[in-house]
Amino acid sequence: MDRTAREYPARLAMTVFGAVIAIFTLLLLPPWATASGTGARFVDALFTAVSAVCVTGLVVVDTGTYWSEYGRAVILAGIKIGGLGVMTLASLLGMAVSRRIGLTQKLLTASEAKVRTSSLGEVGYLIRLIIVVSVTIEAAVAAILLPRFLALGESFGSALWHAVFYGISAFNNAGFVPTAEGLMPYTSDWLVVVPIGLGVFVGALGFPVMANLLQARRFGRRWYRHLSLHTKLTVTTSVALFGAGFLIIGAMEWANPRTFGDQDVATKLLSASFASIMPRSGGFSTVDTGAMNPESWLVMDALMFVGGGSASTAGGIKVTTLAVMLLAILAEARGDRDIDVFGRRIPRDTLRLSIAVVFIGATMVLASCIALLSITEFSLAEVLFEVISAFATVGLSTGITADLPDGGKYVLCALMYLGRVGTISVLGAIALRDRRRVVRFPEERPVIG
Amino acid sequence: MDRTAREYPARLAMTVFGAVIAIFTLLLLPPWATASGTGARFVDALFTAVSAVCVTGLVVVDTGTYWSEYGRAVILAGIKIGGLGVMTLASLLGMAVSRRIGLTQKLLTASEAKVRTSSLGEVGYLIRLIIVVSVTIEAAVAAILLPRFLALGESFGSALWHAVFYGISAFNNAGFVPTAEGLMPYTSDWLVVVPIGLGVFVGALGFPVMANLLQARRFGRRWYRHLSLHTKLTVTTSVALFGAGFLIIGAMEWANPRTFGDQDVATKLLSASFASIMPRSGGFSTVDTGAMNPESWLVMDALMFVGGGSASTAGGIKVTTLAVMLLAILAEARGDRDIDVFGRRIPRDTLRLSIAVVFIGATMVLASCIALLSITEFSLAEVLFEVISAFATVGLSTGITADLPDGGKYVLCALMYLGRVGTISVLGAIALRDRRRVVRFPEERPVIG
Ligand SMILES: [K+]
Ligand SMILES: [K+]
Repeated sequence: MDRTAREYPARLAMTVFGAVIAIFTLLLLPPWATASGTGARFVDALFTAVSAVCVTGLVVVDTGTYWSEYGRAVILAGIKIGGLGVMTLASLLGMAVSRRIGLTQKLLTASEAKVRTSSLGEVGYLIRLIIVVSVTIEAAVAAILLPRFLALGESFGSALWHAVFYGISAFNNAGFVPTAEGLMPYTSDWLVVVPIGLGVFVGALGFPVMANLLQARRFGRRWYRHLSLHTKLTVTTSVALFGAGFLIIGAMEWANPRTFGDQDVATKLLSASFASIMPRSGGFSTVDTGAMNPESWLVMDALMFVGGGSASTAGGIKVTTLAVMLLAILAEARGDRDIDVFGRRIPRDTLRLSIAVVFIGATMVLASCIALLSITEFSLAEVLFEVISAFATVGLSTGITADLPDGGKYVLCALMYLGRVGTISVLGAIALRDRRRVVRFPEERPVIG
Repeated sequence: MDRTAREYPARLAMTVFGAVIAIFTLLLLPPWATASGTGARFVDALFTAVSAVCVTGLVVVDTGTYWSEYGRAVILAGIKIGGLGVMTLASLLGMAVSRRIGLTQKLLTASEAKVRTSSLGEVGYLIRLIIVVSVTIEAAVAAILLPRFLALGESFGSALWHAVFYGISAFNNAGFVPTAEGLMPYTSDWLVVVPIGLGVFVGALGFPVMANLLQARRFGRRWYRHLSLHTKLTVTTSVALFGAGFLIIGAMEWANPRTFGDQDVATKLLSASFASIMPRSGGFSTVDTGAMNPESWLVMDALMFVGGGSASTAGGIKVTTLAVMLLAILAEARGDRDIDVFGRRIPRDTLRLSIAVVFIGATMVLASCIALLSITEFSLAEVLFEVISAFATVGLSTGITADLPDGGKYVLCALMYLGRVGTISVLGAIALRDRRRVVRFPEERPVIG
């Protein structure tokens, strides 16, 4: 698998995710998967399987009432396997990239980060570490939620199931909720909202960041000196996006009677924090997203498109991609030759990769919007939100997904799958890089702008 | 001025355009500028002046009925001066860039294109050439329209005025029409639609392309060998965007009873051609843009955002910017080190400039959409269309501009001004580039995607 990962990364990711989705679709098709016992339609089983395995959280049927307990257990398993798959494949390909680059670009092997990433060692160790880290954080979230759900009057079995479901759904940024009401009853309940919000935030940082933080901690007081550039960029950008979303969404929804308007000030602040974490890309909501202002939707569209950290269960173009583009623009404005940050120079080809990621993402979003506008009567605001939510595997919804015609559901399925697999493939694609032209053409400059 | 252009290009462009807009606002304020004699409100005079000088064509009042003949003459003068200003400033700054780059990057001076651009010679010659070329093409369009308008029964004075107005408005990609009906009565009139469409298309290629084509022609049979990379990229991308727009808009509006639906096949093809040229960025329309499908609006949004050629009267991020980004993605997919096209290598810093142009443009569009959604009740589809039309100085409208509150009109004024001036400033900004860091930081690669 390590060899395959290096040689056919896109094919590996597409095949693995395709096969897992097929299996989970089959698991959701039998009559006993639904609460009514009549069995799901193929398109709804497929959509739910894709949404679970790609840790998206968009639903065409209500998870809490439509599926049986067996069905919900299948969905939870899909989330766990999908989340592990994403982190493992992305981390494996990241290692493959490091090694391949090490072969062709001697300079790079001297850089600290490469050595540190490689020192994670063999594939088996990596997978064990991913499982240990993820289960630990999921269990921590569940351990805080369990006594709270018990205190709120749930039976032990029900409270445990809900706590575990939310723990796994949060850390994996899956956005699925086990009941029809979801998190709506807990809007002002800090003991429920905060652990889920933190679980999502940490999960969206990505495994390379978590591993680096764990390693750095071992160095004691000077731990921050052992943080990689990737960790610094990811954490800084994630915190900045959180702050921007908190201020803008908070201000826009402050007086909206259908969302934050009737809440007390502390709850408004909590709701704004939660709503600014979720686009990156947890997908939970404590207020009705469909009742937000269209300008808030647009802000969330932008946040969702950016998404979370690389090699995380979050989707989107990733926070480092945004950071590299912003740093490039800053360097351009200053007239600097290099793109420098945190005392490091970012390789030039990183920028080209960033552009490819953004451009291909934007094109997929645009094409899907055109398709959905053509086959439905929904507005651009609604369609754009749902399309970006699917592409970035966020799972927030203005409420139109369940009402889409089958054609529209298939469009979103394709987007979730491509948004998920594309992320991994891009990472792997640069591992295959070894062609080098010997003859270079003469340089000529077109006029830009 | 040549020295100022090199040293403070952004300041020069902003000051010149600001001053010209102020003058034309004053010219439109007197009572005799309006047909009713009551005088225009300040915001409407300002909006019209900005729209004319920035060759946009968005209107808050009907040009054909609201303004007096004096008012319409002022608008036409604004278009002509604005168009000349854009082409002259952009070309001057282009020269300044060539020279400055020549000083710091010896390699570049060896490239053919630079020598050719510099050989245009002094500022006076450049301005004379721009005036000769623009008046010639404007006169050619007017000369075809005049007999047609006469044949349709207009008086000579009226026909001449309309022919000259359309000639100037078309070549300068201004999109203003001299009558209330605009081009609606001529939907199937090839002798009106084709010359205006061609005038817009040629105008949107930009002066550097026109000058290069004129020079290359002198070399006889082998003329195509003397085309610069900029010319090849601009023409190829413009033709490709025309073809894509023709096919997609044509297919989407083919059966729409409110647009192409009731037309015969030949007229449908003509309408689709015209509608696919206008977003780049002529702004005329032979059918009601507001009656098109929302998916067609989205396609036109994308085309408008791209806009026309550099140093042309067209706006947007420019076709070469799109081309460079597409070529970079192609190179990235192939694993090529260089971005090659037409046997030439595109300098790496060109890509960074492209990203800055696209990112800043997208941010301006996003922020303006959020502002307009906040202060009006219009839909995202309408607001996005109008915002991109203003940013890219296109002038197409879904019909909401006249109904905007004053705050919304000021937002669009700012967008038209920044869209216009920004284009020129960006071009000039790289002329200022001379800082070079001596110490380079060690390289480190973040994970992307
Ligand atoms: K999600
Ligand atoms: K225009």
